[in-house]
Amino acid sequence: MRESAPEGDQRDVAERAAVAVYEECNRLVELAGPACVAVKPQLACFERLGAQGWWALDEVARAAHRAGLLVVADGKRGDVPVTAVAYGQALVGETDTPWGPVPGLGADAFTANPLLGDDAIEALVDAAARASAGLFLLVRTSNPGAARLQDQPLGDRPFHEELASLVAESAPRLAGESGLSGVGAVVGATAPQHMGRLRELMPDSVFLIPGVGAQGGKPEDLGPALAEGRPASILVAASRSIGRADDPAAAAEELRAAVWSLGG
Amino acid sequence: MRESAPEGDQRDVAERAAVAVYEECNRLVELAGPACVAVKPQLACFERLGAQGWWALDEVARAAHRAGLLVVADGKRGDVPVTAVAYGQALVGETDTPWGPVPGLGADAFTANPLLGDDAIEALVDAAARASAGLFLLVRTSNPGAARLQDQPLGDRPFHEELASLVAESAPRLAGESGLSGVGAVVGATAPQHMGRLRELMPDSVFLIPGVGAQGGKPEDLGPALAEGRPASILVAASRSIGRADDPAAAAEELRAAVWSLGG
Repeated sequence: MRESAPEGDQRDVAERAAVAVYEECNRLVELAGPACVAVKPQLACFERLGAQGWWALDEVARAAHRAGLLVVADGKRGDVPVTAVAYGQALVGETDTPWGPVPGLGADAFTANPLLGDDAIEALVDAAARASAGLFLLVRTSNPGAARLQDQPLGDRPFHEELASLVAESAPRLAGESGLSGVGAVVGATAPQHMGRLRELMPDSVFLIPGVGAQGGKPEDLGPALAEGRPASILVAASRSIGRADDPAAAAEELRAAVWSLGG
Repeated sequence: MRESAPEGDQRDVAERAAVAVYEECNRLVELAGPACVAVKPQLACFERLGAQGWWALDEVARAAHRAGLLVVADGKRGDVPVTAVAYGQALVGETDTPWGPVPGLGADAFTANPLLGDDAIEALVDAAARASAGLFLLVRTSNPGAARLQDQPLGDRPFHEELASLVAESAPRLAGESGLSGVGAVVGATAPQHMGRLRELMPDSVFLIPGVGAQGGKPEDLGPALAEGRPASILVAASRSIGRADDPAAAAEELRAAVWSLGG
């Protein structure tokens, strides 16, 4: 429901909040950035401030790029192909208008939800290919409720393995020189028992791994997620455990060291 | 990738485009609105214009409300519970800040993706409940690729029937006085063979039905989607077939008449 305050006052509140969000994100980029390879802004946390929130999101992406970090836009988007194209424009592409192109967020990669199937995924992979960007499809998420659908048997295997097959089918389209693909997978650290099998099914995909820290996942359980000899095959995401730490730089460095000690 | 044009110029282009989008949407609200009960803005089409796009989205929602229409925010959001809460704030709730609350979009309902499971869905239902709003969970989408995952057998029934069960489980939480629930389902008109079974599984949910018109679905096939004696149990969405019609008012009226002739 809308508040009854005059619109100008509301805009002012949203603008102050958006500036505060940007400043906090920028502080974290400066403190934790040196121990990181990427930032993963959670789009919902910006969208709830409306237009001003999207301004802040854009500024955070620029600050991260200035700091030499990759930007993974975490919105878990997914829609029918014609709309998936528009999400691609918003996150990694641009939009033609009669007055010239409007650039999107300029993210280096984005998270996506595969439920709509292969044609919807293909539209997102196309968008990533055009922008030399990547995407991470949800395969096994980190929340407790994930098991309800993602672990159920679909035919003779768990549903998340079917999602992994979709990732593996698309992976060759964004194969990089290193052999790793720009079509990655979101695989939660909270269910490490699936990691080994999922790595078998998706040998060339980068795993974006949330759920470490506040959600209870442990870096030392992530060894089976690593593709042999490829330390870049996992990207471990932590939000609250770094953002809310007394010393975000130390928290990020501690996680970096723990992940690198896995080898790969 | 970002364009090399100076930032001020880019903002100007995005602003012109956003104003044009708002004006076109407003024109459609005025022309087609009298034959409709709701508008369903596709969030991707606004997000691709960045902050200015969210300004336009907000204005379109206000224009629709002024015209007496409901607003269904179509973003197919879904995330782990802590983030699902933020999507709820963005679309139907508000966000507390040290300077006061920032209102969200003020939508009456939103579309959501159930892949993350029951805890994620519960967070979205909570958000809808707090705002006296509704939500529509994806059950069987309208794109050709939907069959790939949604029609596969999960145990002894198609996966989309499992999604329908999730909807039915949550429906009592948003039961309205009419008996219809604010927990609805997205069921594409392009697969009418599933409608009857899905209505059995979700007797009290409103079906949001895309896929009529440009995607090939036919209103006359939708009879089995109607709950007996409840004409409000289906909400048929058309975008391109109205928005791109020479006479949007006539196209909307024609669809309205076809849907109402189904009875219910």
